[in-house]
Parts: sequence; C-alpha cells; structure tokens
Amino acid sequence: MLPKSVKIVEVGPRDGLQNEPTLVPTVAKIKLVEQLAEAGCSVIETGSFVSPKWVPQMADSAEVFHKIDRQNKVRYTALTPNLHGLQQAITAQVDEVAVFAAASEAFSQKNINCSIAESLERFTPVMKLAQQHRLPVRGYVSCVLGCPYEGNVSPQQVAQVSKQLLDMGCYEVSLGDTIGVGTPLKTQQMLEAVLSHASVDKLAVHFHDTYGQALANILMALQQGISVVDSAVSGLGGCPYAKGASGNVATEDLVYMLDGMNIKTGINLKKLAQAGLNMMQVLGRQSSSKVACALTA
Amino acid sequence: MLPKSVKIVEVGPRDGLQNEPTLVPTVAKIKLVEQLAEAGCSVIETGSFVSPKWVPQMADSAEVFHKIDRQNKVRYTALTPNLHGLQQAITAQVDEVAVFAAASEAFSQKNINCSIAESLERFTPVMKLAQQHRLPVRGYVSCVLGCPYEGNVSPQQVAQVSKQLLDMGCYEVSLGDTIGVGTPLKTQQMLEAVLSHASVDKLAVHFHDTYGQALANILMALQQGISVVDSAVSGLGGCPYAKGASGNVATEDLVYMLDGMNIKTGINLKKLAQAGLNMMQVLGRQSSSKVACALTA
Repeated sequence: MLPKSVKIVEVGPRDGLQNEPTLVPTVAKIKLVEQLAEAGCSVIETGSFVSPKWVPQMADSAEVFHKIDRQNKVRYTALTPNLHGLQQAITAQVDEVAVFAAASEAFSQKNINCSIAESLERFTPVMKLAQQHRLPVRGYVSCVLGCPYEGNVSPQQVAQVSKQLLDMGCYEVSLGDTIGVGTPLKTQQMLEAVLSHASVDKLAVHFHDTYGQALANILMALQQGISVVDSAVSGLGGCPYAKGASGNVATEDLVYMLDGMNIKTGINLKKLAQAGLNMMQVLGRQSSSKVACALTA
Repeated sequence: MLPKSVKIVEVGPRDGLQNEPTLVPTVAKIKLVEQLAEAGCSVIETGSFVSPKWVPQMADSAEVFHKIDRQNKVRYTALTPNLHGLQQAITAQVDEVAVFAAASEAFSQKNINCSIAESLERFTPVMKLAQQHRLPVRGYVSCVLGCPYEGNVSPQQVAQVSKQLLDMGCYEVSLGDTIGVGTPLKTQQMLEAVLSHASVDKLAVHFHDTYGQALANILMALQQGISVVDSAVSGLGGCPYAKGASGNVATEDLVYMLDGMNIKTGINLKKLAQAGLNMMQVLGRQSSSKVACALTA
C-alpha cells in the first residue's frame, strides 16, 4: 500500500550545501530557504550548529536563521551534534533539531572519532536539553545500506541503532544511504529489519544518488509504507567525510515521481525547480536534477 | 514476484548512437559492439537499415554487421522499417530485425508521416519476408507513457497496438517511453492494460531517462513480471524526432540494480562500463551513467 501523501524533508540548504568547496554567500542561502518555503516545502533543514573548523560552510547558520522571513507552516530545522550546538540552535529559534549516529563502527570512528555507543551517549545531554525546550529531535542514521570502510552493513545493526535513537526520544529516524550504494532489495531488507523494531510512522529514508538508484529505492520504501523522504533541491550535496558520496536525490525528481503517482507533497514543482536553478547559478554549474534540466531544455 | 533473470537488450549502438550529431567512426561502432558482446550482452541492437537521408548516423550499418567479430551466443539485431531495409538486413546476415509503431496518432504522423494503421499495414510485407527467412521480428511501440504532441496516451491504445504487432507475428513487443515522462504508477497502469491482451513473456520495456524515472519504472515493470529490458550503455541516445527526448536508461545503472537484487543478467559490469567509457572518449563527453561515473571516481 502506497502512502497518499509524503512529507518531504528538504535538506538542500544543509546536507546539500555543507559540502560545497567555496563559501556560498549567506544572502544566497537565505534566498534559497525562502524560495523553498515559497514552493511549499514544509520542512527545511536550514543549517547546522557545528564547529566552523569542521564545516566552514555552515558557519553562518545563526545568521541564516536570524534573517530568513519565516512562514508559519514551515519547520526550519538544524543539525546539532552537541550541547554547544544545541544551545546555539535554541538561541537561533530553530523549530527542530537533529542528531546523528552511524550504522557502521568504522564510519563512526572515522567520521566522528568515537564508537556508535559513545556517539549515542554524547547525545544524552542534547536530548535532555531539547526536551526541556520542547524541541523535537530527529535522528539520522548513516551508512544504512553500506559503508565506505566496512562494505556491507547488517540490517540488524541499522535496526538496533534506529531503535536506540527512538528510545532516547527522537520522534523520527531518517535512514541514510550515505554513499548511495543501495539497491531496492537491500532497501527492502533493511526496512524489514528496522520495521520489526520501530513503527513505520517514525521512519524516514534518505538516499544519495551515487549509483542512480535513489528513486527506485524510494519507490521500494514507499511500498513498505514509508511516507517521509529526505531530498535536496538540484540534487545538491554529498558527505564531506564519506569517500565517493555524491549528491542527494534531487527533490525535483522525487516530486515529479510522487506527482505522477498521485501522492501529495504540497510542493509546487515549477517554483521548486526555479529555487534550485537560482542556487545553481550562484554555484556556477548545472543542476543534478534531471527534471530541472528537462523543464528548462 | 520478481523475475530471477532479466534479458537486457542493449540498444546503445543503434537507438543510442543514431542521434549523435557528428558521424561516429565505423571502427568505433564495431569496437563498441564487440566490447558489449565481450561484457556478456546477449542481444545487441547493432544497426538500422533506414534511408541514410533520414538517419545518416546509421548509413554504415551494413559495414558494421560485415566487420564485427561475431560471438555464437549473441544476437545482433537491426531496425528495418521497410522491405528494402529488410533485404539489406538479410544480406548483412542479421540475427533478428525490428519494426516499430507509435501508440500516438500525432507522433505516428509527425515521425513517419502516416497513421498508426497505415504504419502497421506497411509492415505486412516485411513480416512476410522475415518469416520466409525465419528471422525473428521484434516490435517497438513508442510513446507508451506520453507523446510530445498529444500529451497523455491511453493504456488501451498501447495495448491495442501491441496486440496488433504480436498478431502480425512479432515474437516480442518492446514498450517505449520515448520521451521519458512516465512514472511508476503510469507504468503499472499501462502494463496492466497490455497484459490483459498479451502474455508477459512477450513484452519488454524501454525507458528513456529524461525525468530521471527510468529505474523506478523498471522496478515497477519487474514487479509486474516483465523480464526483458532495453537499455543503452552510457545512457546513450534519445529520439531524433521527439522533442525533449534524452538518453536511454544506462545499462550500467540497470545492471547495478539487478546485480544488487540478485537478478541475473549475464553481464559483467566492469567490462560493460569500460565499453561505455571507450565510446564516451570517442564522443568527447562524460557518460550519462551514474554507475560509470562512480566507478571511475
């Protein structure tokens, strides 16, 4: 049974832009977020409160949050890997925060220099402070269909980490194929494992399109009942620490598919594509969205 | 129920290359066909016997067929739109020929200057001569999920044209989303209509990736029992007469998906990708296969 509507979590301004090698002007980020909201995106991952030493591209997140013209119906979210980041996010009046863990030990070590268990432990004070401020917390799990260092990742491991994040108080867990190696069968097997420990309405999927499999994987996820999907306008992004990670699945291509399947998203495809094209002009390269390219051909 | 194996019909040398604006050297075409066979492709659409006035890129098809080093297990096929073309194909000792019709009246008129009924009538002598020579004939139906001139195309119309091609003696009908506008729901509805008139083992699907939907559509087709899929190495191609038609789905991306789903194709992905990269070097541009790009990153 396919869902009747899908909540798209637009991650372009954060997961998308964080990997850009040259600093994107703050004003362009603000324009992007505002145009995404204007296009009907209801959840926009707007920034990240991390050390600017590690992710210089996100150093202006507080300014972006401060200056965007907010719309009531939109949730503007941010990644907050630690207590200091969460405090900044609270000051910036974000609507929702996110923490992350890996499903692969090797990736956890290389990416954030600690074990999976240690990473979850570090989030305990973050969860506590977020709850005090009644801030919803989203959990990201990376490497759910493969790891650049370990190769295969067991669905059971994904299920366990997801369950731990939900048990800690995350209202939703986004399952990320960080390096885009998954196929529909792996997607199905991974989801079946996670769904035996978690309710379907608490899960989201997050695919990178490195091997062109993202939309097929999303179709499989929809068939498993998943109704929350992460994507980035123009297919922006990648993972700065993950070898071979290319962009996220393009929101335009996802919306085109869902529109064609009569699954509601609330997003206006033309306005969305325009928001993406404006950003691609700033970045000085072609969109990775096939739909955006086809619409402007 | 997914099929256990899929027959991939590699259309790169014909449907792929026919649209290239500058003439591809015959020697490069021969090398491509031979490397595709070497990679394990079992059916290779090698050329087309059409007027060189209309498709100059295919003017050397007889030479290609003459010079390729043929492998026993491989079927080398050609498009033969009329009796003259078929006679040339017989002389060139092709293993299989193909005819085509549109599912859209407007497309038939603009593309081949006659109605669908007239186009089918014209194939009667072609079918007869092919049968005399015991040559299998494949039928292509174009615009099965949309037409650049008419917009929507009814699944019933696709079913009717497909049935007529099968009734005329085609052993297989390939259902083509010529302009790549389809989504999984449309694919499902179209196939359901065709399957009520034709046996699943007589059907193939052929998707262009204009809107990035091809692999998701193929997944849906596999779920409907389809086990023959057309694709072009490097995502070569498009339709010279169809407005906005971009390349075919890339064989590399398709094989990657099928490999990951434990569905046999008999194709070696690395060798396949290398065959494609060699052709892209001749064409002087980047591959449209995400898998090929990821493998060489």
